[in-house]
Amino acid sequence: MKNKNNKKNPGKNCYTIGVLVENRFGVLARIAGLFSGRGYNIDSLSVAETLDPTVSRMTIVTRGNEQVIEQIMKQLNKLIDVIRVIDLSEEKYVDRELVLIKVNAKSSMRAELLRITDIFRGNIVDVSSDTYTIEVTGDEDKIQAIIDLMSPMGIKEIVKTGKIAISRGSKVLNTP
Amino acid sequence: MKNKNNKKNPGKNCYTIGVLVENRFGVLARIAGLFSGRGYNIDSLSVAETLDPTVSRMTIVTRGNEQVIEQIMKQLNKLIDVIRVIDLSEEKYVDRELVLIKVNAKSSMRAELLRITDIFRGNIVDVSSDTYTIEVTGDEDKIQAIIDLMSPMGIKEIVKTGKIAISRGSKVLNTP
Repeated sequence: MKNKNNKKNPGKNCYTIGVLVENRFGVLARIAGLFSGRGYNIDSLSVAETLDPTVSRMTIVTRGNEQVIEQIMKQLNKLIDVIRVIDLSEEKYVDRELVLIKVNAKSSMRAELLRITDIFRGNIVDVSSDTYTIEVTGDEDKIQAIIDLMSPMGIKEIVKTGKIAISRGSKVLNTP
Repeated sequence: MKNKNNKKNPGKNCYTIGVLVENRFGVLARIAGLFSGRGYNIDSLSVAETLDPTVSRMTIVTRGNEQVIEQIMKQLNKLIDVIRVIDLSEEKYVDRELVLIKVNAKSSMRAELLRITDIFRGNIVDVSSDTYTIEVTGDEDKIQAIIDLMSPMGIKEIVKTGKIAISRGSKVLNTP
């Protein structure tokens, strides 16, 4: 099973790719260019430093057919700034996403908002006279579920990190 | 106060920029290119869809002097794919980051690992015979604190989302 997204997009496979890169300027532009050069959209991308500040780690989520993804993986491996690439979709992995949701919070809805936030183990991180800002973490389905519940109240703003992913078990993606 | 990072990097200001863009291929490459073309590194970047699948939102963290950031903001605003740009560092905002940490978990250390995870309101998301994978959310200082505590046990792998940020109060960054 490549991905549960197949249910929603039966003709399109979803790929989660982990990339370790040298933390130099221009790396992100080159990697993003590899995808756009082939007309492939990046659904989400997260990049941040690892423990070694000279090395960054990206998680890229993209859709496409298998041949094109294989090509992209090969091209990524050829880039001088790329240290290691892994197609996490080929193995067991844990993925998580963080979302900040600013939602209308009329006084009549506040109790319900708190209940939903509690059930999803979220946190209220900011309050104004008419809004709550909620932080919640989970996989795609959980995030979609809380968005669906909050939508009727009026979501004013949403910021997502995009998925990050790590292999299950003791296998690691590290610098050689 | 531009950013608390000033403490660590007194000569360098840290900027957190929110960008709403059309969800087309090539956008990320063009935006990343704007930064690298000026020799500016992106510390972290997260991009994912908003509620409207034709619009994505990026959070970019970068360092540089004020003039250059102003230039970059102007250039961003000129890009046809860019809907809105905001320099969150100029106002009050909430920022959060999600981290997955795979750490050595010898049986003698497991109780301590669970305690630390509890204190930081993290979750164990995977277990193998010799590792725990911990999910934790917070601002930069909190994330650094748990990393510092886990380091002596041996962090085997770390994946961060990079910072996402949202304005405090009821102000929103949305499509016009």
